[in-house]
Amino acid sequence: MTICVATSTLKHMLDYQPSLNDVFHALADPTRRAIFERLVEGDAPVSELAKPLAMSLAAVVQHIQILEHAGLIATHKTGRVRTCRIEPRALREAETWIAQRRDLWERRLDRLGEILDEQQSATSSNKEPT
Amino acid sequence: MTICVATSTLKHMLDYQPSLNDVFHALADPTRRAIFERLVEGDAPVSELAKPLAMSLAAVVQHIQILEHAGLIATHKTGRVRTCRIEPRALREAETWIAQRRDLWERRLDRLGEILDEQQSATSSNKEPT
Repeated sequence: MTICVATSTLKHMLDYQPSLNDVFHALADPTRRAIFERLVEGDAPVSELAKPLAMSLAAVVQHIQILEHAGLIATHKTGRVRTCRIEPRALREAETWIAQRRDLWERRLDRLGEILDEQQSATSSNKEPT
Repeated sequence: MTICVATSTLKHMLDYQPSLNDVFHALADPTRRAIFERLVEGDAPVSELAKPLAMSLAAVVQHIQILEHAGLIATHKTGRVRTCRIEPRALREAETWIAQRRDLWERRLDRLGEILDEQQSATSSNKEPT
Protein backbone atom coordinates (compact mmCIF):
# COMPACT_ATOMS: atom_id res chain seq x y z
CA MET A 1 0.00 0.00 0.00
CA THR A 2 1.46 3.38 -0.94
CA ILE A 3 0.35 6.52 0.85
CA CYS A 4 1.37 9.74 -0.87
CA VAL A 5 2.56 12.27 1.72
CA ALA A 6 4.54 15.48 1.12
CA THR A 7 8.28 14.75 1.19
CA SER A 8 9.46 18.38 1.22
CA THR A 9 10.93 17.99 4.69
CA LEU A 10 13.17 15.07 3.72
CA LYS A 11 16.09 17.25 2.61
CA HIS A 12 15.98 19.38 5.77
CA MET A 13 16.20 16.26 7.92
CA LEU A 14 19.71 15.66 6.60
CA ASP A 15 21.06 18.80 8.26
CA TYR A 16 20.09 18.29 11.89
CA GLN A 17 21.25 16.18 14.83
CA PRO A 18 24.81 15.53 13.60
CA SER A 19 25.68 14.03 17.00
CA LEU A 20 23.20 11.19 16.42
CA ASN A 21 25.58 9.98 13.69
CA ASP A 22 28.32 9.59 16.30
CA VAL A 23 26.05 8.00 18.92
CA PHE A 24 24.60 5.37 16.56
CA HIS A 25 28.04 4.75 14.99
CA ALA A 26 29.49 4.19 18.48
CA LEU A 27 26.69 1.76 19.39
CA ALA A 28 27.07 -0.18 16.10
CA ASP A 29 30.10 -2.06 17.42
CA PRO A 30 29.74 -5.01 19.86
CA THR A 31 33.00 -4.21 21.70
CA ARG A 32 31.86 -0.65 22.31
CA ARG A 33 28.41 -1.83 23.46
CA ALA A 34 30.13 -4.31 25.81
CA ILE A 35 32.32 -1.53 27.26
CA PHE A 36 29.24 0.66 27.66
CA GLU A 37 27.31 -2.17 29.37
CA ARG A 38 30.23 -2.75 31.77
CA LEU A 39 30.21 0.97 32.65
CA VAL A 40 26.46 0.83 33.34
CA GLU A 41 27.42 -1.41 36.29
CA GLY A 42 29.91 1.15 37.58
CA ASP A 43 32.82 3.43 36.65
CA ALA A 44 36.00 1.57 35.66
CA PRO A 45 39.60 2.30 34.69
CA VAL A 46 40.63 1.61 31.08
CA SER A 47 42.90 -1.27 32.17
CA GLU A 48 39.93 -3.06 33.80
CA LEU A 49 37.75 -2.54 30.71
CA ALA A 50 40.52 -3.97 28.52
CA LYS A 51 41.13 -7.13 30.62
CA PRO A 52 38.36 -9.39 29.24
CA LEU A 53 38.72 -8.15 25.65
CA ALA A 54 40.77 -10.11 23.12
CA MET A 55 42.53 -7.08 21.68
CA SER A 56 45.42 -4.74 22.35
CA LEU A 57 45.13 -1.94 24.92
CA ALA A 58 45.59 0.51 22.04
CA ALA A 59 42.52 -0.92 20.27
CA VAL A 60 40.46 -0.67 23.46
CA VAL A 61 41.58 2.95 23.90
CA GLN A 62 40.41 3.68 20.34
CA HIS A 63 36.97 2.22 21.12
CA ILE A 64 36.82 4.30 24.32
CA GLN A 65 37.73 7.43 22.35
CA ILE A 66 34.86 6.76 19.91
CA LEU A 67 32.42 6.33 22.83
CA GLU A 68 33.76 9.53 24.42
CA HIS A 69 33.59 11.47 21.12
CA ALA A 70 29.92 10.40 20.81
CA GLY A 71 29.26 11.74 24.30
CA LEU A 72 28.20 8.30 25.57
CA ILE A 73 30.95 8.18 28.20
CA ALA A 74 33.35 10.59 29.88
CA THR A 75 36.86 9.90 31.14
CA HIS A 76 39.13 11.55 33.70
CA LYS A 77 42.76 10.92 34.58
CA THR A 78 44.05 10.69 38.15
CA GLY A 79 47.80 10.12 38.17
CA ARG A 80 48.41 7.41 35.58
CA VAL A 81 44.90 5.93 35.75
CA ARG A 82 42.19 6.98 33.27
CA THR A 83 38.72 6.15 34.60
CA CYS A 84 35.58 5.94 32.44
CA ARG A 85 31.97 6.64 33.38
CA ILE A 86 28.59 6.81 31.63
CA GLU A 87 27.35 10.16 30.30
CA PRO A 88 23.56 9.69 30.09
CA ARG A 89 22.58 12.59 27.79
CA ALA A 90 23.70 11.14 24.42
CA LEU A 91 22.03 7.78 25.05
CA ARG A 92 18.84 9.59 26.06
CA GLU A 93 18.91 11.56 22.77
CA ALA A 94 19.22 8.37 20.74
CA GLU A 95 16.40 6.79 22.75
CA THR A 96 14.21 9.87 22.18
CA TRP A 97 14.89 9.84 18.43
CA ILE A 98 13.85 6.18 18.18
CA ALA A 99 10.85 6.52 20.53
CA GLN A 100 9.45 9.52 18.63
CA ARG A 101 9.67 7.68 15.28
CA ARG A 102 8.06 4.58 16.76
CA ASP A 103 5.32 6.71 18.28
CA LEU A 104 4.63 8.51 14.96
CA TRP A 105 4.55 5.20 13.12
CA GLU A 106 2.14 3.63 15.64
CA ARG A 107 -0.15 6.70 15.42
CA ARG A 108 -0.19 6.39 11.64
CA LEU A 109 -1.20 2.75 11.98
CA ASP A 110 -3.99 3.76 14.41
CA ARG A 111 -5.25 6.40 11.95
CA LEU A 112 -5.22 3.86 9.12
CA GLY A 113 -7.19 1.47 11.33
CA GLU A 114 -9.78 4.15 12.07
CA ILE A 115 -10.13 5.00 8.36
CA LEU A 116 -10.67 1.33 7.52
CA ASP A 117 -13.25 1.00 10.33
CA GLU A 118 -15.13 4.08 9.06
CA GLN A 119 -15.09 2.76 5.50
CA GLN A 120 -16.39 -0.59 6.70
CA SER A 121 -19.19 1.09 8.74
CA ALA A 122 -20.15 3.28 5.75
CA THR A 123 -20.24 0.24 3.47
CA SER A 124 -22.41 -1.71 5.97
CA SER A 125 -24.92 1.16 6.46
CA ASN A 126 -25.20 1.72 2.68
CA LYS A 127 -26.07 -1.94 2.08
CA GLU A 128 -29.65 -2.72 1.07
CA PRO A 129 -31.38 -4.89 3.68
CA THR A 130 -31.70 -8.45 2.33
CA MET B 1 34.58 7.41 41.83
CA THR B 2 35.40 3.85 40.80
CA ILE B 3 33.11 0.99 41.76
CA CYS B 4 34.67 -2.45 41.40
CA VAL B 5 32.14 -4.84 39.86
CA ALA B 6 32.82 -8.27 38.34
CA THR B 7 33.51 -7.93 34.61
CA SER B 8 33.36 -11.64 33.78
CA THR B 9 30.31 -11.12 31.57
CA LEU B 10 32.02 -8.54 29.34
CA LYS B 11 33.44 -11.09 26.91
CA HIS B 12 30.11 -12.90 26.53
CA MET B 13 28.38 -9.66 25.62
CA LEU B 14 30.44 -9.51 22.42
CA ASP B 15 28.74 -12.60 21.04
CA TYR B 16 25.06 -11.71 21.21
CA GLN B 17 22.65 -9.46 19.30
CA PRO B 18 24.63 -9.29 16.04
CA SER B 19 21.67 -7.60 14.34
CA LEU B 20 22.01 -4.58 16.63
CA ASN B 21 25.27 -3.85 14.80
CA ASP B 22 23.33 -3.53 11.55
CA VAL B 23 20.48 -1.49 13.06
CA PHE B 24 22.75 1.05 14.75
CA HIS B 25 25.02 1.17 11.68
CA ALA B 26 21.98 1.88 9.49
CA LEU B 27 20.79 4.65 11.82
CA ALA B 28 24.26 6.26 11.98
CA ASP B 29 23.78 7.92 8.59
CA PRO B 30 21.64 11.08 8.19
CA THR B 31 20.41 10.10 4.71
CA ARG B 32 19.22 6.74 6.00
CA ARG B 33 17.54 8.37 9.02
CA ALA B 34 15.85 10.83 6.63
CA ILE B 35 14.58 7.98 4.44
CA PHE B 36 13.35 6.16 7.54
CA GLU B 37 11.59 9.30 8.83
CA ARG B 38 9.90 9.76 5.45
CA LEU B 39 8.65 6.17 5.58
CA VAL B 40 7.25 6.74 9.08
CA GLU B 41 4.79 9.11 7.33
CA GLY B 42 3.77 6.44 4.84
CA ASP B 43 5.01 3.80 2.41
CA ALA B 44 6.80 5.21 -0.65
CA PRO B 45 8.38 4.02 -3.90
CA VAL B 46 12.18 4.30 -4.21
CA SER B 47 11.86 7.01 -6.89
CA GLU B 48 9.86 9.23 -4.49
CA LEU B 49 12.39 8.69 -1.69
CA ALA B 50 15.22 9.64 -4.04
CA LYS B 51 13.63 12.87 -5.35
CA PRO B 52 14.65 15.30 -2.55
CA LEU B 53 18.09 13.74 -2.04
CA ALA B 54 21.17 15.26 -3.69
CA MET B 55 22.62 11.95 -4.82
CA SER B 56 22.30 9.38 -7.59
CA LEU B 57 19.45 6.86 -7.62
CA ALA B 58 22.11 4.13 -7.25
CA ALA B 59 23.36 5.74 -4.02
CA VAL B 60 19.80 5.95 -2.66
CA VAL B 61 19.24 2.30 -3.53
CA GLN B 62 22.40 1.40 -1.58
CA HIS B 63 21.09 3.27 1.49
CA ILE B 64 17.74 1.48 1.14
CA GLN B 65 19.52 -1.87 0.92
CA ILE B 66 21.40 -1.11 4.18
CA LEU B 67 18.11 -0.19 5.91
CA GLU B 68 16.50 -3.36 4.55
CA HIS B 69 19.49 -5.54 5.56
CA ALA B 70 19.16 -4.13 9.11
CA GLY B 71 15.49 -5.10 9.14
CA LEU B 72 14.39 -1.48 9.62
CA ILE B 73 12.38 -1.44 6.39
CA ALA B 74 10.99 -3.94 3.90
CA THR B 75 10.52 -3.52 0.16
CA HIS B 76 8.32 -5.17 -2.42
CA LYS B 77 8.24 -4.86 -6.20
CA THR B 78 5.03 -4.46 -8.21
CA GLY B 79 5.83 -4.32 -11.92
CA ARG B 80 8.76 -1.90 -12.21
CA VAL B 81 8.03 -0.03 -8.97
CA ARG B 82 9.80 -1.00 -5.72
CA THR B 83 7.90 0.30 -2.69
CA CYS B 84 9.39 0.66 0.79
CA ARG B 85 7.71 0.44 4.17
CA ILE B 86 8.70 0.46 7.86
CA GLU B 87 9.42 -2.84 9.63
CA PRO B 88 8.92 -2.02 13.32
CA ARG B 89 10.68 -4.96 15.00
CA ALA B 90 14.33 -3.92 14.48
CA LEU B 91 13.72 -0.37 15.69
CA ARG B 92 11.93 -1.75 18.75
CA GLU B 93 14.93 -3.99 19.52
CA ALA B 94 17.31 -1.02 19.36
CA GLU B 95 14.95 1.00 21.57
CA THR B 96 14.75 -1.87 24.08
CA TRP B 97 18.54 -2.24 24.20
CA ILE B 98 18.96 1.48 24.96
CA ALA B 99 16.04 1.64 27.42
CA GLN B 100 17.32 -1.34 29.42
CA ARG B 101 20.82 0.19 29.77
CA ARG B 102 19.37 3.55 30.76
CA ASP B 103 17.12 1.84 33.30
CA LEU B 104 20.03 -0.16 34.81
CA TRP B 105 22.15 2.98 34.99
CA GLU B 106 19.38 4.98 36.68
CA ARG B 107 18.82 2.16 39.22
CA ARG B 108 22.54 2.16 40.04
CA LEU B 109 22.38 5.91 40.64
CA ASP B 110 19.36 5.39 42.93
CA ARG B 111 21.25 2.71 44.90
CA LEU B 112 24.26 5.00 45.25
CA GLY B 113 21.94 7.75 46.50
CA GLU B 114 20.45 5.40 49.09
CA ILE B 115 23.91 4.28 50.28
CA LEU B 116 25.00 7.92 50.66
CA ASP B 117 21.78 8.74 52.57
CA GLU B 118 22.32 5.75 54.93
CA GLN B 119 25.94 6.77 55.53
CA GLN B 120 24.83 10.32 56.27
CA SER B 121 22.13 9.08 58.71
CA ALA B 122 24.63 6.78 60.44
CA THR B 123 27.14 9.63 60.79
CA SER B 124 24.45 11.94 62.20
CA SER B 125 23.17 9.41 64.79
CA ASN B 126 26.77 8.56 65.91
CA LYS B 127 27.58 12.21 66.59
CA GLU B 128 27.97 13.21 70.23
CA PRO B 129 25.40 15.82 71.22
CA THR B 130 27.12 19.21 71.56
